[in-house]
Amino acid sequence: MDNIVEEFNAYRSKMNEKMLEDNNKIIKRIFNLDTNAFTEGVLSKKTKELLGLGNSLVLRCDDCVRYHLEECYKLGVTKEEAVEAMSISLLIGGTIVIPHLRRAFEYWEALENN
Amino acid sequence: MDNIVEEFNAYRSKMNEKMLEDNNKIIKRIFNLDTNAFTEGVLSKKTKELLGLGNSLVLRCDDCVRYHLEECYKLGVTKEEAVEAMSISLLIGGTIVIPHLRRAFEYWEALENN
Amino acid sequence: MDNIVEEFNAYRSKMNEKMLEDNNKIIKRIFNLDTNAFTEGVLSKKTKELLGLGNSLVLRCDDCVRYHLEECYKLGVTKEEAVEAMSISLLIGGTIVIPHLRRAFEYWEALENN
Amino acid sequence: MDNIVEEFNAYRSKMNEKMLEDNNKIIKRIFNLDTNAFTEGVLSKKTKELLGLGNSLVLRCDDCVRYHLEECYKLGVTKEEAVEAMSISLLIGGTIVIPHLRRAFEYWEALENN
Amino acid sequence: MDNIVEEFNAYRSKMNEKMLEDNNKIIKRIFNLDTNAFTEGVLSKKTKELLGLGNSLVLRCDDCVRYHLEECYKLGVTKEEAVEAMSISLLIGGTIVIPHLRRAFEYWEALENN
Amino acid sequence: MDNIVEEFNAYRSKMNEKMLEDNNKIIKRIFNLDTNAFTEGVLSKKTKELLGLGNSLVLRCDDCVRYHLEECYKLGVTKEEAVEAMSISLLIGGTIVIPHLRRAFEYWEALENN
Repeated sequence: MDNIVEEFNAYRSKMNEKMLEDNNKIIKRIFNLDTNAFTEGVLSKKTKELLGLGNSLVLRCDDCVRYHLEECYKLGVTKEEAVEAMSISLLIGGTIVIPHLRRAFEYWEALENN
Repeated sequence: MDNIVEEFNAYRSKMNEKMLEDNNKIIKRIFNLDTNAFTEGVLSKKTKELLGLGNSLVLRCDDCVRYHLEECYKLGVTKEEAVEAMSISLLIGGTIVIPHLRRAFEYWEALENN
Repeated sequence: MDNIVEEFNAYRSKMNEKMLEDNNKIIKRIFNLDTNAFTEGVLSKKTKELLGLGNSLVLRCDDCVRYHLEECYKLGVTKEEAVEAMSISLLIGGTIVIPHLRRAFEYWEALENN
Repeated sequence: MDNIVEEFNAYRSKMNEKMLEDNNKIIKRIFNLDTNAFTEGVLSKKTKELLGLGNSLVLRCDDCVRYHLEECYKLGVTKEEAVEAMSISLLIGGTIVIPHLRRAFEYWEALENN
Repeated sequence: MDNIVEEFNAYRSKMNEKMLEDNNKIIKRIFNLDTNAFTEGVLSKKTKELLGLGNSLVLRCDDCVRYHLEECYKLGVTKEEAVEAMSISLLIGGTIVIPHLRRAFEYWEALENN
Repeated sequence: MDNIVEEFNAYRSKMNEKMLEDNNKIIKRIFNLDTNAFTEGVLSKKTKELLGLGNSLVLRCDDCVRYHLEECYKLGVTKEEAVEAMSISLLIGGTIVIPHLRRAFEYWEALENN
């Protein structure tokens, strides 16, 4: 198995750079907001990352799920907590969420083994 | 203004009853799971309800948003916390979330005035 | 309670007419296709209407659900059959389907009482 | 028939004000961006509003469709142009777009009669 | 060309196992329901699998489409029947369904050649 | 890096052919409509392709985005114009659009280098 964590992050960084070089104001500001939205507020960073994870999963965005799984992992969220959050998304979003859940479990394992 | 909280809950209860009377096993079990998923676990009830709220908002389901707003309200979630959770959904889900956010603010106000 | 069946159909007919008067070729042809797609083929009309119902429900389109519920009803689909089809959509589409299922049950009851 | 244009705008303004009073930074900035994104750029304001209309229609957001229809109308977009843009969204988004198209035609008529 | 049928099923089985080992109650029960929902009822297994296929296609879930295509194939659904069901999903879901339809045709061919 | 432009077009052509050989009337007609919808009308071909691009991006359909990017490119749309259209889709569709935007930038670069 390839290192999916490193591959994902390398591609993500490379393309984010290209997008930001492009100097489109809307894109730049949304990237800025994206950083701001997940800082400590009345909700903790951890709760916010779990929200990012849950929202990404019901919207079935694999790359977004990976990103927030990784942020959760770095913040010390346990697997059981991440899975509990994702199980709520599975119930709300239905069985079409399952293929994305498979890939989320695979990515979490890759994070643990990285 | 009509009492949108009471109206919503009355319709919801009446129709849930009719659906459950119908004895379809899949529907019944999903209703059961729905109750189970939001009980205290490794994540608190409050975090789970915020997840339910955030997921419902990105999926643009007004009735689901109302339901989870009300559960949050009953658990003592502050308006600032609910809004912070919803602002993450706005960023992730984009400006098409705005009309649903308007109705969410209206419902929260109705909860406070009820 | 108002007669939701008649109201729905009156609005639908009135607006369809206005759209078709407009002579946009794409709109006209898609309306034509819509009639064609649900005629008897290698699948029966009944199976096709159940497919239309199920697809509409997972896509959470209340008006589309109403339309296909009514076509199913006219073809003699039983409530138990319609509910079984809809329960599959509930499982696949998740609990955000529930508010639409409530309105579907209400519409079916209105069809029976009409 | 009620004046759906005035009703829509009154509710929209009232609730936007309440949301902005709330001082959530993410919400405020997204509202700001929303104003910025539709100003003249390398694409004309008119093309941008048609894009806003088309995107809103495939995402099946009635309030967003109304908003962009109104902006198009104010910029002198003809009905034929708006319908052509919307017919592309119908083709791309499928027949589940039809109920939203009905309401779009109704709103355009209301704009003309306002 | 690799054997996409075997690859898909191997990954699916491996990851389903890992998810179920994890002992999250919500995930386990939804997997159970998923098995139950497609058994013979007032609707035949075949009709139910066609519903699963159609729903998966409008929701643009490639892995779900593959799964239900394979179940249809095993039940003796003909290609013409499967395509008729999918053509309804194409009409309802619009041309964004086309890329998923391409992959569905490819998978069906792989099932026939397996 | 492989030639993603040629790969995409080869797969697309091969599978389109197989779908059309199949003689399903609904599929054939929708393919026909798809060609018709993007011809010069009251809106220019260029505006229509930008609409196709924007709609595809908010619906997060990578293959549709690629197709319309390529049509835009052939019509002489500049990168700045394409990015401006896509930035509107990013705002309307939210940050879940970002992964698709990354791949759109990559494809545009491949078109330029092809």
